[in-house]
Amino acid sequence: MERKILLTDSADAKGLIAQITNICYKHQLNIIKNNEFVDHNHGRFFMRTELEGHFNDATFLADLDSALPDGANRNLVPAGRKRIVIMVTKEAHALGDILMKNAYGGMDVEIAAVIGNYDVLEELVNKFDIPYHTVSHEDLTRPEHEAKIIELIQQYSPDYVVLAKYMRILTPEFVAHFPNKIINIHHSFLPAFIGASPYRQAFERGVKIIGATAHFVNNNLDEGPIITQDVINVDHTYDAADMAKAGKDVEKLVLTRALSLVLDEKVFVSGNKTVVFR
Amino acid sequence: MERKILLTDSADAKGLIAQITNICYKHQLNIIKNNEFVDHNHGRFFMRTELEGHFNDATFLADLDSALPDGANRNLVPAGRKRIVIMVTKEAHALGDILMKNAYGGMDVEIAAVIGNYDVLEELVNKFDIPYHTVSHEDLTRPEHEAKIIELIQQYSPDYVVLAKYMRILTPEFVAHFPNKIINIHHSFLPAFIGASPYRQAFERGVKIIGATAHFVNNNLDEGPIITQDVINVDHTYDAADMAKAGKDVEKLVLTRALSLVLDEKVFVSGNKTVVFR
Amino acid sequence: MERKILLTDSADAKGLIAQITNICYKHQLNIIKNNEFVDHNHGRFFMRTELEGHFNDATFLADLDSALPDGANRNLVPAGRKRIVIMVTKEAHALGDILMKNAYGGMDVEIAAVIGNYDVLEELVNKFDIPYHTVSHEDLTRPEHEAKIIELIQQYSPDYVVLAKYMRILTPEFVAHFPNKIINIHHSFLPAFIGASPYRQAFERGVKIIGATAHFVNNNLDEGPIITQDVINVDHTYDAADMAKAGKDVEKLVLTRALSLVLDEKVFVSGNKTVVFR
Amino acid sequence: MERKILLTDSADAKGLIAQITNICYKHQLNIIKNNEFVDHNHGRFFMRTELEGHFNDATFLADLDSALPDGANRNLVPAGRKRIVIMVTKEAHALGDILMKNAYGGMDVEIAAVIGNYDVLEELVNKFDIPYHTVSHEDLTRPEHEAKIIELIQQYSPDYVVLAKYMRILTPEFVAHFPNKIINIHHSFLPAFIGASPYRQAFERGVKIIGATAHFVNNNLDEGPIITQDVINVDHTYDAADMAKAGKDVEKLVLTRALSLVLDEKVFVSGNKTVVFR
Repeated sequence: MERKILLTDSADAKGLIAQITNICYKHQLNIIKNNEFVDHNHGRFFMRTELEGHFNDATFLADLDSALPDGANRNLVPAGRKRIVIMVTKEAHALGDILMKNAYGGMDVEIAAVIGNYDVLEELVNKFDIPYHTVSHEDLTRPEHEAKIIELIQQYSPDYVVLAKYMRILTPEFVAHFPNKIINIHHSFLPAFIGASPYRQAFERGVKIIGATAHFVNNNLDEGPIITQDVINVDHTYDAADMAKAGKDVEKLVLTRALSLVLDEKVFVSGNKTVVFR
Repeated sequence: MERKILLTDSADAKGLIAQITNICYKHQLNIIKNNEFVDHNHGRFFMRTELEGHFNDATFLADLDSALPDGANRNLVPAGRKRIVIMVTKEAHALGDILMKNAYGGMDVEIAAVIGNYDVLEELVNKFDIPYHTVSHEDLTRPEHEAKIIELIQQYSPDYVVLAKYMRILTPEFVAHFPNKIINIHHSFLPAFIGASPYRQAFERGVKIIGATAHFVNNNLDEGPIITQDVINVDHTYDAADMAKAGKDVEKLVLTRALSLVLDEKVFVSGNKTVVFR
Repeated sequence: MERKILLTDSADAKGLIAQITNICYKHQLNIIKNNEFVDHNHGRFFMRTELEGHFNDATFLADLDSALPDGANRNLVPAGRKRIVIMVTKEAHALGDILMKNAYGGMDVEIAAVIGNYDVLEELVNKFDIPYHTVSHEDLTRPEHEAKIIELIQQYSPDYVVLAKYMRILTPEFVAHFPNKIINIHHSFLPAFIGASPYRQAFERGVKIIGATAHFVNNNLDEGPIITQDVINVDHTYDAADMAKAGKDVEKLVLTRALSLVLDEKVFVSGNKTVVFR
Repeated sequence: MERKILLTDSADAKGLIAQITNICYKHQLNIIKNNEFVDHNHGRFFMRTELEGHFNDATFLADLDSALPDGANRNLVPAGRKRIVIMVTKEAHALGDILMKNAYGGMDVEIAAVIGNYDVLEELVNKFDIPYHTVSHEDLTRPEHEAKIIELIQQYSPDYVVLAKYMRILTPEFVAHFPNKIINIHHSFLPAFIGASPYRQAFERGVKIIGATAHFVNNNLDEGPIITQDVINVDHTYDAADMAKAGKDVEKLVLTRALSLVLDEKVFVSGNKTVVFR
């Protein structure tokens, strides 16, 4: 008995659920959990089906292909452990929460390596017996620097790249290597305070709530599809440094929640948005 | 074209989604929205299916009955306006929020009548041109009082009875007339502070968060299936009266959210719990 | 025995609390509640002191003036009921929550009048026996329209003007008549989604949290000092209309919380921010 | 220039703020931050004063003693780093968050040692170069076990003892050694689900919100003064294990927030409650 997850994403059409679940039934696959969503604005159908049984992937997918509308995406993925590479700069909190959860419970993922543009976090990563690579950006052009990182990442063939407070902007060329595979944590409640120093901006504006946003990275800074967000209350007694300190807890939890959702194959990208099943 | 909602609740079995959605497809009914949940602890399957098309209820339900496991519940309800009777005592906030939303947007329900054991809220209800009945409990035994209320409610044949801060305990006999049809708002985060004066209890205990709970009423006070809950922060500057005042906003929103979910047929009762679809 | 609130706001200096509280003590005024805040970034001191006793305002303030730094603001206000004028357009929820709380508990304020640029809400306001004035903007220039409203407001001499979803932009000339006296509710988590149709913007961006912001109105649209904010979670199943509907509850509570804080004299304006005591 | 914090806690009386701040002024101590609270129900006054200057503790406290009511508590503590001992059993998340924050930013405390009744967490603690002591309860009576722990704790003279998911009940004799110095994290929103297996209890009850509570430990299990609480939403898709997993993040943040407040001397114990300044 295996467990796999079928991810279907197609133009909406009558009878889609019946057709897909019929094929599952015909293949003697038991549906453990099923979620659908129809985006009626765009006529788009999304379905996530957790299946258990003995899989013949080729015939199962062939049956699906003959039933689904033209241009449908269907993906059958094992319900197992994924592999990630984490990129960092100097801040430890988001990285540390992933390391802790992975080592002591709360997240089951293979952390293939951590790449930093400084060596500040090497010692932390070493505590957890995970390879750390310092790829300094000094004396390198941006394309040169990114080329070195891309090469390194590709050696590990990760399912996802996690930016755990990696503080340099990635070029479209970099992003194009890992489409919808890069997850970033931004330290504001996007789209408020896009760009640099969001806590400074929040302090200057006098907001009473601050937040964090986990999103897929696309070509526009801080504008990729949002996966999850959370906020905390602040008040006039917080200066920018206090906000940054309080915000770290939100950042790390928003990132690990988003990552868990992605690793569980619960997140569909739909244009510049996400469909997130529970 | 009509819209109806099919609610299915049965022992779990292989192929249930396929069978139900096949029958929908065979009857040319379009699935607008579908949600399922399998309670693996109890081997129980729940499905809510919003359907659009031309319904032949008798043949559709007969087809379902021949496909579903023995003892399955299936219910096909029009996706329309429901009718409620509201019961109150003296506090206006929960009642007022329902009246406002019903009259000016936010909730589409027929408020057949409001019944109070005092006449305090008659004037408020009259502002909205809804019948108000004062059924005083004075000089009556509890069974006598409840009998008068039951008779009155039954004249209106409501789909649900809403206790919008009705401050008297209902007997099992009363509840038995409206099984899983009575929705109550309790002014605490249940199961904390069951019973009388929960804000006083919360103040005495020194909690830093207070809440409210909407639940179906069963035979045990404050112990019916919980539909929804919400909380707010308090601190040492709040005395019991401050908590009660702040809590009113939570109470009214928790009640109207729960009521909206119930009116949209999104809530299944499962033993002493609920399954609430979104 | 009277109760008054002393509001002090000055350049920071050593011994300010001692000097102010000494003067209170000398005048035999009992301090019921005291809050201070020093903005160390700007060297600014804020203090709110609830006092009880027999007041000789003139000598008390004269004593304060001789003790406080040059340019200090000090204001002694009765701890009583304030008067407001509410401005609306067509949406009832924010107005309705103020009306309900004022009539049935939760807010103690004199609502002198409601002014709308449509007559849609006249019937609602009349239910609560409060004057409603329709001042249509049709066939009027903006200055002409505002002049009529200003004249009307001034007849009532309100302490504050509350924009309970008044959907027209106010000119700097209008705002200059009521400096730091106009409170607005904006239906987004500012500074995200400034301007028109914030729920539409939020839907297009795919955010997972929406919010509302109560702020004082200054010359720049949606950029005045923020008093309070709150948020709720949304997901991919919400379209713009669902967000707008869910958001109404946040809007009304954020506005009434902000208004209560302002009416209790708990809010200082400090540049483009606020200091909000609890 | 030193910084110290004056904590005053006495029967309420007229002129207390003036008297205390006068003494500060006389001693040329600058008030950086001041908070007061009067509990009018119990006639009790609380004040926390952050002071900067050159301290002569003896004369300053003598001046205070002659001014304060009989039975007043006043405590002048350095605004510096405190020392803690942490007690654990097998779960890593709460301990790990303290270790991470202490090592990489977010909490400045001296962790003198960690004591566990198992050796499971020794390896984690060793990563951070902090002493770990396994004091197994096996083959020992409860008094014998506690005696060994007390002896160990006393060697380190900690300011506070932090129970970071220490899963054994402490006797009144143990607690009496560290009055108002033991901080516990309980994995429920107290007073709901006191005692064992709160997530199991929460699951059985079908609550829609779960939480965590940090509190001082007194003689009654889970009944000490609450310092801070927080909650998260759950739904019917969560079983007890899912709740426990989701709850870990709340637990760790509630504990570190409470600990930070205590370390910053912002928490007064008042009977069975707390006054928590911001």
